[in-house]
Amino acid sequence: MTRAAVLGAGSWGTAFALVLADAGATVGLWARRRALAETIAARRENSDYLPGVRLPAAVSATADVETALAETNYVFLAVPAQELRSHLARWAPLVPAGAVLVSLAKGVELHSGKRMSEVIAEATGIPPERVAVVTGPNLAREVAERQPAASVVASVDADVARRLQQVCHSPAFRPYTNSDVVGCELAGAAKNVIALAVGIAAGLGFGDNTRASLITRGLAEVTRLGVALGADPHTFAGLAGLGDLVATCSSPLSRNRQLGTALGEGRTVAEAFAGSRQVAEGVRTCAAILELAGRHRVEMPVAEHVTRVVRGELSPAQLIAGLVSRSAKPERHGW
Amino acid sequence: MTRAAVLGAGSWGTAFALVLADAGATVGLWARRRALAETIAARRENSDYLPGVRLPAAVSATADVETALAETNYVFLAVPAQELRSHLARWAPLVPAGAVLVSLAKGVELHSGKRMSEVIAEATGIPPERVAVVTGPNLAREVAERQPAASVVASVDADVARRLQQVCHSPAFRPYTNSDVVGCELAGAAKNVIALAVGIAAGLGFGDNTRASLITRGLAEVTRLGVALGADPHTFAGLAGLGDLVATCSSPLSRNRQLGTALGEGRTVAEAFAGSRQVAEGVRTCAAILELAGRHRVEMPVAEHVTRVVRGELSPAQLIAGLVSRSAKPERHGW
Repeated sequence: MTRAAVLGAGSWGTAFALVLADAGATVGLWARRRALAETIAARRENSDYLPGVRLPAAVSATADVETALAETNYVFLAVPAQELRSHLARWAPLVPAGAVLVSLAKGVELHSGKRMSEVIAEATGIPPERVAVVTGPNLAREVAERQPAASVVASVDADVARRLQQVCHSPAFRPYTNSDVVGCELAGAAKNVIALAVGIAAGLGFGDNTRASLITRGLAEVTRLGVALGADPHTFAGLAGLGDLVATCSSPLSRNRQLGTALGEGRTVAEAFAGSRQVAEGVRTCAAILELAGRHRVEMPVAEHVTRVVRGELSPAQLIAGLVSRSAKPERHGW
Repeated sequence: MTRAAVLGAGSWGTAFALVLADAGATVGLWARRRALAETIAARRENSDYLPGVRLPAAVSATADVETALAETNYVFLAVPAQELRSHLARWAPLVPAGAVLVSLAKGVELHSGKRMSEVIAEATGIPPERVAVVTGPNLAREVAERQPAASVVASVDADVARRLQQVCHSPAFRPYTNSDVVGCELAGAAKNVIALAVGIAAGLGFGDNTRASLITRGLAEVTRLGVALGADPHTFAGLAGLGDLVATCSSPLSRNRQLGTALGEGRTVAEAFAGSRQVAEGVRTCAAILELAGRHRVEMPVAEHVTRVVRGELSPAQLIAGLVSRSAKPERHGW
């Protein structure tokens, strides 16, 4: 019997707890706020983040992390990327010996430039062979509704990846293994930046041609960064790269795209966040990605333009002009 | 002064005539039906295919192909893929010596398996160095509205590609050159097949995760076919591949996606076409692409499933089941 803990009861943590239960595991779902944990336990529904979705009986919500972690074989980390390290400092002593730690968060740590799997290994002292990542085109609401979805399970240890694949393979959720942890994590983090750009174009009223060009150029620059960091370029053409990017950029459910649209319509970041409980990870990831790109001397014009719009240094219209009105050249010679 | 002919006054031919005029050319736009040519000439609007778009004064509509072709340097071919060869048999003697012939059609000829540039060279006797292709994420309506769009101009002759790039570089339309004609044409043709699959999933009520997985898998199999035919795999990650695919699969304006949606909702191909003036090229391209794949022993599960749904041999739900319910495996080992 697999016992899993999902730490973080936002929309993706909650949806993933449902996948694990569908795949046969017993799941402890930890929520930071006691009131939310109690409501989920009482109603079997996370009405804050996934209203209308009934959680299976195998999911137990709790605000007590020790209870969630007790006797678990797999610990899934679904807290915001920038908060992961400080959470882990408190959680590490409670993780059962031999458990596999799995990142569900998409982001790069600010200033350190570390990927989530690196943060996990550093903050807990657990060897990288027991750390893994799940990422792919997985909008939480659709996964929670059990629509067919494919995903990627990545670990440097092929055996860990295969075991984890079985743990989260439900009738509707189909994970593929991949050994390229660097590429999978980088693609997942950087897609949030591209989604902001696509949202900005939508907010300005531009249609599918502009969106498709931004997605294509965005994926090309993220692939360049990945290759500079040692990733396999094929990862970026797969589910964790192209797949996740297309799902995020198409969906009106994507928080980063929604934020971009608000910016494109002329609101500021502060205005766009007002009244929203959810965080658009892309805003904080922008800076982290650009730091990485600078360190590795990779040009990332889409990420640069988005970051300047987020900071209020550039208007949304200037972003489109800056990315579109360059002189014509051969496609391969980098836009 | 550049004189261009655009042969074919459907939505894309008409939109491209507008781009050429915006870029400074004088354009003869040929319509097969005299009534349509006269209406366009009188109203400066193609009310059948692009209602509400005013055509520039530099565009002259005619039903007389000799008038359209007189003294042209560039001939853009915007007729349906399966009709191109028979049209060219009549037009070839009228093409001015030295003119460049440019394919705007996306498709592969049934039975011969030939790409449009191959059909052009064969049917006219014009050397491949004077044949080119324009392709990319270019929904006709958005291009006609002068939304920012990027595109690809491909020719085996780099000088022809550069000259053509200038001829169609308008303030809103930005072409990049590419020497990989095989990849550009194949990507443009095969994306129609993937768009049918995406439409079928949408018609069944599936959301963005399923769509993103189909796009990712679809592009992977098209890339495999391209490599088998000698194309550069990078082309498929660029505007002519990924870009065009994403634009087509996102847009409710795409005819192939619309047809797929009708099939997914349970209508037959005949019912879906009834009352529509426009043709979904994807239906005829399906068979041509599968023929090519068979000849080169490339597995294309998405194209195979779509073809069987189009033929009525498989239900839309069986398509999703067949593509989604395979056993889990490593991502790189082909889905």
